[in-house]
Amino acid sequence: MNGADALLATLVANDVTACFANPGTSEMQFVAALDRKPEMRPVLCLFEGVATGAADGYGRMADKPACTLLHLGPGYGNGIANLHNARRAFTPVVNVIGDHATYHRQYDAPLNSDIPALAAPNSLWVKSADSPDAVAGLAAEAVAASFGPPGGPVSLILPADSAWLETKGEPIIAQRTVRPAPAGSAVDAAAKALKAAAKPVILIGGQACRAEGLVQAARLQAAGVRIVSDTFVARQPRGAGHFAPSRMQYFGEMALSDLAGVDLMVFAGTTEPVAFFAYPNRPSVLVPEGCKTLTLAARAEDAVAGLAALADAMGAPKQGPSQPLKRPEAAPSGPLSAAMAGLSVARHLPEGAIICDDSVTSGGGIAVPALTAAPHEVLALTGGAIGIGLPLAVGAAVAAPERKVVSLNGDGAAMYTIQALWTLARENLDVTVVVFANNSYRILNIEMARTGAGDAGPQAAKLLGLGDPSIHWVPLANGLGLPAVRCATAEEFETAFAGAMARRGPMFIEAAI
Amino acid sequence: MNGADALLATLVANDVTACFANPGTSEMQFVAALDRKPEMRPVLCLFEGVATGAADGYGRMADKPACTLLHLGPGYGNGIANLHNARRAFTPVVNVIGDHATYHRQYDAPLNSDIPALAAPNSLWVKSADSPDAVAGLAAEAVAASFGPPGGPVSLILPADSAWLETKGEPIIAQRTVRPAPAGSAVDAAAKALKAAAKPVILIGGQACRAEGLVQAARLQAAGVRIVSDTFVARQPRGAGHFAPSRMQYFGEMALSDLAGVDLMVFAGTTEPVAFFAYPNRPSVLVPEGCKTLTLAARAEDAVAGLAALADAMGAPKQGPSQPLKRPEAAPSGPLSAAMAGLSVARHLPEGAIICDDSVTSGGGIAVPALTAAPHEVLALTGGAIGIGLPLAVGAAVAAPERKVVSLNGDGAAMYTIQALWTLARENLDVTVVVFANNSYRILNIEMARTGAGDAGPQAAKLLGLGDPSIHWVPLANGLGLPAVRCATAEEFETAFAGAMARRGPMFIEAAI
Repeated sequence: MNGADALLATLVANDVTACFANPGTSEMQFVAALDRKPEMRPVLCLFEGVATGAADGYGRMADKPACTLLHLGPGYGNGIANLHNARRAFTPVVNVIGDHATYHRQYDAPLNSDIPALAAPNSLWVKSADSPDAVAGLAAEAVAASFGPPGGPVSLILPADSAWLETKGEPIIAQRTVRPAPAGSAVDAAAKALKAAAKPVILIGGQACRAEGLVQAARLQAAGVRIVSDTFVARQPRGAGHFAPSRMQYFGEMALSDLAGVDLMVFAGTTEPVAFFAYPNRPSVLVPEGCKTLTLAARAEDAVAGLAALADAMGAPKQGPSQPLKRPEAAPSGPLSAAMAGLSVARHLPEGAIICDDSVTSGGGIAVPALTAAPHEVLALTGGAIGIGLPLAVGAAVAAPERKVVSLNGDGAAMYTIQALWTLARENLDVTVVVFANNSYRILNIEMARTGAGDAGPQAAKLLGLGDPSIHWVPLANGLGLPAVRCATAEEFETAFAGAMARRGPMFIEAAI
Repeated sequence: MNGADALLATLVANDVTACFANPGTSEMQFVAALDRKPEMRPVLCLFEGVATGAADGYGRMADKPACTLLHLGPGYGNGIANLHNARRAFTPVVNVIGDHATYHRQYDAPLNSDIPALAAPNSLWVKSADSPDAVAGLAAEAVAASFGPPGGPVSLILPADSAWLETKGEPIIAQRTVRPAPAGSAVDAAAKALKAAAKPVILIGGQACRAEGLVQAARLQAAGVRIVSDTFVARQPRGAGHFAPSRMQYFGEMALSDLAGVDLMVFAGTTEPVAFFAYPNRPSVLVPEGCKTLTLAARAEDAVAGLAALADAMGAPKQGPSQPLKRPEAAPSGPLSAAMAGLSVARHLPEGAIICDDSVTSGGGIAVPALTAAPHEVLALTGGAIGIGLPLAVGAAVAAPERKVVSLNGDGAAMYTIQALWTLARENLDVTVVVFANNSYRILNIEMARTGAGDAGPQAAKLLGLGDPSIHWVPLANGLGLPAVRCATAEEFETAFAGAMARRGPMFIEAAI
């Protein structure tokens, strides 16, 4: 076998079985080796930002990494924004970055660049396999590193000669590090502080927001401690049967108003909350003045075990509150808005659906009615780099083919990685795409006022609006292989969304709001 | 004025008057300041790779930088691939990268990342303006640095508070470094070596391939020295009235076969040629064995002055050969191919047109007949990162609004930065887009064999083909605001291309080959 075979053997031996790829010449050995390792599923993405975002969606749902296959520095570069999001989601991802043959690097050919430098800011681990015999061991290291805890993207550079030269390449099994439970002293300290506090809050994030974490958090809420989740969570169950914590508000002043009077914040699976952006004369840290803070479980620790131990120590009941099933009864009518669309989503979302949310200003309209919809899970934009809603859906659908995936996108966000539509069509993934077409980067109109920059004049307005010309989403989606429909009324959206939920396969809905 | 005003004042004072942008919250002060500085033209791009590629196209045509406006690390990340190309084109580009307020960085908010580390590999110069008073001086430094010589992208990080706080901000004029002429001794040495050589070649690149460089190179060819250009040149005139040097072949073995027997290579505005990729048992350096090499003018030197002095020293005639005007007489007919399309391009290309070439395997069909077309200029893919043909056209058209721009793209390449079509429509740019739709990354089918990886089996084939489903380019382009037509025969292409050349404004042609 050659180095590419060795890489695939070790990846597959470690249960890495999906590859989101856009290869070039330097990756041809890896591509050829795929035919000798059918356990690895190659998924072509027409842009690397789709590949990395798909790997994020896959990792969030599969709890194991997919690999990407990227073409040198520029190919990796195209994937950076969604790797930034994956880093903020702590999602395991193994990037395989093809490079020039080791001896060719010195000549600085046109595609040469400093790949380790480019990869470092968004990779927990970066190494180059500079000989074929090094490939298997480093691949196992990469897989292990991607799991963390708390996990994230890693980057294995594969020079072309390391791929084409022969090696023994016995598959090597990755040695994963287990998340340690928080120390008993941390649990005791948290219990003591919570009992002493007048108005405490537990802030949960990451693993603590998964199903098993929410169960324990609900017990603590039943014991009288308010539970608040991070604003943007990588993966969180929602709907009937799940506990619904309140959520840190996006805007700092609203967050602090919500937390007014809180005298203790305990962190489980997350850290001190900070404002998404700084604004003139507004605070960066979203902890009320005088409020004490305390960590129950760091991100790398087992926050679920920590919450369970804390609930026991607090004498919490065995079971906390959970949401009832209460779908909106009446079909919405009248002009379409995000709120109206949200009612239809809540009415028709099937049990076990996965929502990939990159809907920016339209997201709020869905979040409230979905609290009592059929049980589902939400994958949020964790790193603020828009353009992940479509790629996440690609990856989630590959990881969980039996579940309906709904991708909610702002129009500005959807355009970032629009190439993903083609992969949805090619792979016939069971994904319903909704684009909220308000012809605007609406969030920026809000943010402009908040930053004290004043109202947009004609020049500034040119950078905030998408309406000149309006994007025609239906032909665009058709062109990339998807059936598509435009909805301008709540009735039209209700019909389209209900229809999409009732059938399998990819579908595109423009919500003209 | 605030720091954002100061930045714009210094940029405009240095004749930086185009801004290719996709801003976010941290850039709102810059956006607002645009209304107070109407000399700066903001051009919205729906993805940052479009913005950076447009800045490259603008810089190549205007011989001065445009600025980009990018949103923190992820926004810059999306622009990396085309900045890689700009670095390889030595194009001046001033990236303005918004960042969190200086005091907010420590909190590692979701959009925080190591911007200097991300920017370094593709920036000649990276600095952060960490106070408003530093903005004007650093902006002038950035502009100066972008000019080199030989020039390239630079990155100025603008924290939000440096943008919103007050400053005096008198505009500062950049101090540019002039390209020095090569030393007389280098000219003498080259002349002596050329006279002594049996079969010498002068390899020209960069500035030596511009109009004035070609004039001097032609004189040397007239004196009996074969002139060869780099394979991929940032900007090169072609067609009637221009000297047509031969070109380094893309594939190494073809290049070495072409150079067989050459005993001296003299470099002007470029360096020793190397293979684009390494392949098993094939050479990396494309200099024949035993051939001497010698640098007349380094990239940072004035290669035109060097060639002129060398031509004088060689006693070359005052004028060398140039191409006749000889358009293909007969309209092509039959099935469409890149070669047939090339005939139509050569027949109808107007004088002064600018070709932005990202057509990969289809490019050869145009290059030959275009040698005797009306005089035009070609902007090539310099760094191998596909997805620049559409963005380059945006920038070239903004820089040279009176000239027809023709953007030639492979289908795989076009999908990378397809968002550029919308900007062409919005700005009503005089650009004709041609996409050669062969439903394939065809170059990779060729490269797969060359790398010794063998034939593609069913898994590998999934990563090389774009035909399942076929992209419907006409609705896709319509959806993004462009009139579009599909041509499946040479006659259809002839009619469509002639029509597009005869009218102004954006137009999309699918060449189904």
